[in-house]
Amino acid sequence: MLTNDQLNHWDRENFLHPSTHFGQHGRGESPTRIVTTAKGCYIEDRDGTKLLDAFAGLYCVNVGYGRTEIAEAISKQAHELAYYHSYVGHGTEASITLAHMVAERAPAHMNKVYFGLGGSDANETNVKLVWYIQNVLGRPEKRKIISRWRGYHGSGLITGSMTGLVPFHNKFGLPMSEVVHTEAPYYFRRADPDMSEEAFSAHCAAKLEELIEREGADTIGAFIAEPLLGTGGIVPPPAGYWDAIQPVLRKHDILLITDEVVTGFGRMGTMMGSTHYGITPDIITIAKGLTSAYAPLSGSIVSDELYKVLEDGTDKFGPFGHGWTYSAHPIGAAAGVANLKLIDELGLVQNARETGAYFRNAMAAALKDHRFVGDARGDGMLAAVELQRDPGARVDFDASEKVTAQVVGEMVKRGVIARAMPQGEIIGFAPPLCMTPAEADKVVEVTRDALDAVTGTL
Amino acid sequence: MLTNDQLNHWDRENFLHPSTHFGQHGRGESPTRIVTTAKGCYIEDRDGTKLLDAFAGLYCVNVGYGRTEIAEAISKQAHELAYYHSYVGHGTEASITLAHMVAERAPAHMNKVYFGLGGSDANETNVKLVWYIQNVLGRPEKRKIISRWRGYHGSGLITGSMTGLVPFHNKFGLPMSEVVHTEAPYYFRRADPDMSEEAFSAHCAAKLEELIEREGADTIGAFIAEPLLGTGGIVPPPAGYWDAIQPVLRKHDILLITDEVVTGFGRMGTMMGSTHYGITPDIITIAKGLTSAYAPLSGSIVSDELYKVLEDGTDKFGPFGHGWTYSAHPIGAAAGVANLKLIDELGLVQNARETGAYFRNAMAAALKDHRFVGDARGDGMLAAVELQRDPGARVDFDASEKVTAQVVGEMVKRGVIARAMPQGEIIGFAPPLCMTPAEADKVVEVTRDALDAVTGTL
Repeated sequence: MLTNDQLNHWDRENFLHPSTHFGQHGRGESPTRIVTTAKGCYIEDRDGTKLLDAFAGLYCVNVGYGRTEIAEAISKQAHELAYYHSYVGHGTEASITLAHMVAERAPAHMNKVYFGLGGSDANETNVKLVWYIQNVLGRPEKRKIISRWRGYHGSGLITGSMTGLVPFHNKFGLPMSEVVHTEAPYYFRRADPDMSEEAFSAHCAAKLEELIEREGADTIGAFIAEPLLGTGGIVPPPAGYWDAIQPVLRKHDILLITDEVVTGFGRMGTMMGSTHYGITPDIITIAKGLTSAYAPLSGSIVSDELYKVLEDGTDKFGPFGHGWTYSAHPIGAAAGVANLKLIDELGLVQNARETGAYFRNAMAAALKDHRFVGDARGDGMLAAVELQRDPGARVDFDASEKVTAQVVGEMVKRGVIARAMPQGEIIGFAPPLCMTPAEADKVVEVTRDALDAVTGTL
Repeated sequence: MLTNDQLNHWDRENFLHPSTHFGQHGRGESPTRIVTTAKGCYIEDRDGTKLLDAFAGLYCVNVGYGRTEIAEAISKQAHELAYYHSYVGHGTEASITLAHMVAERAPAHMNKVYFGLGGSDANETNVKLVWYIQNVLGRPEKRKIISRWRGYHGSGLITGSMTGLVPFHNKFGLPMSEVVHTEAPYYFRRADPDMSEEAFSAHCAAKLEELIEREGADTIGAFIAEPLLGTGGIVPPPAGYWDAIQPVLRKHDILLITDEVVTGFGRMGTMMGSTHYGITPDIITIAKGLTSAYAPLSGSIVSDELYKVLEDGTDKFGPFGHGWTYSAHPIGAAAGVANLKLIDELGLVQNARETGAYFRNAMAAALKDHRFVGDARGDGMLAAVELQRDPGARVDFDASEKVTAQVVGEMVKRGVIARAMPQGEIIGFAPPLCMTPAEADKVVEVTRDALDAVTGTL
């Protein structure tokens, strides 16, 4: 380890961090943390601080940190063959094996996977697939993408446009005109408090159909959605939502992309979130849990029906003109194979289901009656606590009070990492799938203490 | 290694390869190659075939294959800390050190780097930076990007639009309307054979200015270009090109992004291609050579002047709303640190310059008078041979003859990998920077033999 001062100096001088206040960082006004090692649910920084990471990095370290099995697989691959490309039929044992393992874990009607690096580029590939497929089908004008307000689908230009969150649009001139947004399935924020979940789901489906008719179904290529809203606030779908939405899409011949970057590979207590909620997608986006972030890898899983169109397309037009240099990178593929094996061997899908339920129940029991808690929700190993100034009267905190940021800051002081979600006053939790009930108890206790510490003065 | 048949079956059943004919691959009609190991300039497949890779993967394995130093660095990082995110001021020793090493190697006026995964997402970040910066400067309508026909800037939606090659646009409905293209600096294809290089450069600058005036300078945010055209045909700029182009951009207040995904970190026989050609960019895109592809990592290097605007922006509007989960991934950062050290220790920049010149001279000597060779060109450790039916009369082969694909196929039979560039009849060479003169001789010999084998019957 270099001396602290030198690393700190270089960090301020040379490193543009994502989602960071550049001015404060560059001038040394905001804190930094240099992480050195991690094990299980805990990370440790160079100053010896240990923190229980109840957000698993960015909900990605699903198997937990420090898994020797994955590190060894990466090391072996790096020594044997760190890189060769996968263009024009080239592969490695790891990339081919992983393609098969992904197909085994996907819904039965989906058997082909295209590998990328992160969720954003996988969604970029998905839009390219949609535009290509609609073109092959002779309807190139079916091109617009519908996403949902509060959806998260990446940080690029089109992918950031599909993301339906203001902080990702503002000052970048997004969304672009190829993307239109429909109502978020955010039952907690329904206009009419007396509306049932089923009625709210029907309302969302009606709003979707209204949008399709306004834009013209012949201009809409696909609908993209997370099975459960992730970065938009960890919001499970209201009862009947997917049963109401899917017939609208089928009726108007609109492809369905489920973005399972967060929900894929166990986080919902089931292998895939689409299955969990009874969704039958045409394309699934995968990333994070595919490798538990030990190495970058993402993917687009394509249905057998769409694959037939792709096959027709290349028979008519020749090779598919799309590729990333690092598609199916051997290091990522080796990490993916070891990671998916480990999820099975350690029974992490089952633990996500069981300890996830224990965690959510404990959180709700500890907080649902707190005077500043409007909602305590979640599913699988995902939970959120939404804060309000006056939950009974549905009055929100003012964003300028930064209540959630303060709570999350107090939690870190008490040894637990949670996430202040980017839009709204929402504390998010997405622990590694290996979290124990004792660790869950600690997260709940620290959350309550931190909330009291911040709101005690309000 | 699994049995050949099982891997082959899974490959056909489950794996969508980039730039591949899906139909032929899926039905088992096209060849595959499963690569198992590699060393220096050679890769080896599971059948024991060894090939001299004169394209370094996809011009990315700059230090050559099988470097234990990088494999060890990856292994060490994977065991200590495979992942933590770099959002909101978080870092690792590797990511911070690499940011500093990149700044040391960049032009003196550029000292900040944002890390991504591949060249496409780095260019996506660059367009976001341009849109944000123009917004902060109070001119949000300065938004269009000018790129060049035959430029290559990625395979995404906007990045694939910036790419000026037909195979990447066709059937995808690209380019998008935010991107406009100007003349390629392709002196070999000049309309008037008597025009000097300098006159052709002035012509390109005039065409650029015409385009700017037609679109309106107040609608143009940036110009993006490779220092030397890469995937578009490995075409060095004609004499005086950059001296003619840069004043036009400055005059119209248009930012200059140099895409150094191919040229960065030694390939031109200099550390950076911008310096090599006397270019003063505002943003530089880096990827491939940054890690020699041992792990995915890319970057956007930002000038001090633009950084001031970013600083002002976050002071006014708060944190910069952009990030990839795997930005500055520790495994990629560790690979990058080891790779840049190795480039220095092995003197690879100097070898690229010297053996590159030897290689290009040998290729030109062997082929420039061949009756089907129109041009033999290159710079640094990059070379191209352009084939024509009748070079004296400037008559091209018909694309349907697939002459270059046949030559490259014959080369593989003789143990050497070159690349049939995607548009035109161009054989491309981009060997690892560690190539020896003896290996260069072999590449030249095999190229000539393969060309004769194919064209002997024409």
